[in-house]
Amino acid sequence: MADHRDTGLTLDPKFDDNGLLTAVCTDRASGEVLMVAHMDAEAFAATVATGEAHFWSRSRKALWKKGESSGNVLRVHDIRIDCDQDAVWLICEPAGPACHTGRRSCFYRRVDGDRLVPAT
Amino acid sequence: MADHRDTGLTLDPKFDDNGLLTAVCTDRASGEVLMVAHMDAEAFAATVATGEAHFWSRSRKALWKKGESSGNVLRVHDIRIDCDQDAVWLICEPAGPACHTGRRSCFYRRVDGDRLVPAT
Repeated sequence: MADHRDTGLTLDPKFDDNGLLTAVCTDRASGEVLMVAHMDAEAFAATVATGEAHFWSRSRKALWKKGESSGNVLRVHDIRIDCDQDAVWLICEPAGPACHTGRRSCFYRRVDGDRLVPAT
Repeated sequence: MADHRDTGLTLDPKFDDNGLLTAVCTDRASGEVLMVAHMDAEAFAATVATGEAHFWSRSRKALWKKGESSGNVLRVHDIRIDCDQDAVWLICEPAGPACHTGRRSCFYRRVDGDRLVPAT
């Protein structure tokens, strides 16, 4: 089964004990990592079907279309899946800031030893 | 606490119920996502201290220095942390293939509807 998942061309996502995949979203233009979120089977299917990123909100325990309230949708240009099919990489065209803080990316701080500094 | 984590410059990683952060590794040169793995507090500290990527192996239940057997270490150029501090982005200089299959990246397949195709 591991070999099948690793080497084959059969889509067989390996959801974790909570029924989730890890989803990494990058900006198609800049390559920057915009955000990391999670997808259940429904969110994954909705993303594939619509071409817009859907996740599972672990805090709200509900399907979450990114940008459903803000308008900052992530248009998905390409979906890649990793060797053991428990993580997906979404190559996106963002309609606006991906982060709830209003920043383009959620990764706006750099780890510098035991503290954080703004990423430039 | 959420605001503190989101807006401050205090490093305060939010480990999940299993004591893990999500770690996304990209290639500094190409921007490609190489792999997604997990870090416990020890792996995170070892990565910060040594500048080489360490993870928690969920299958082996042990600290795992990437490349410890293969030599394909990931030299970490930059560590970013996301708004809620439960995910890190490692900008890496890979010494060799990141994937156990020998491929440069674990994300060598593209989702095309209900099947996979080789990513080119």
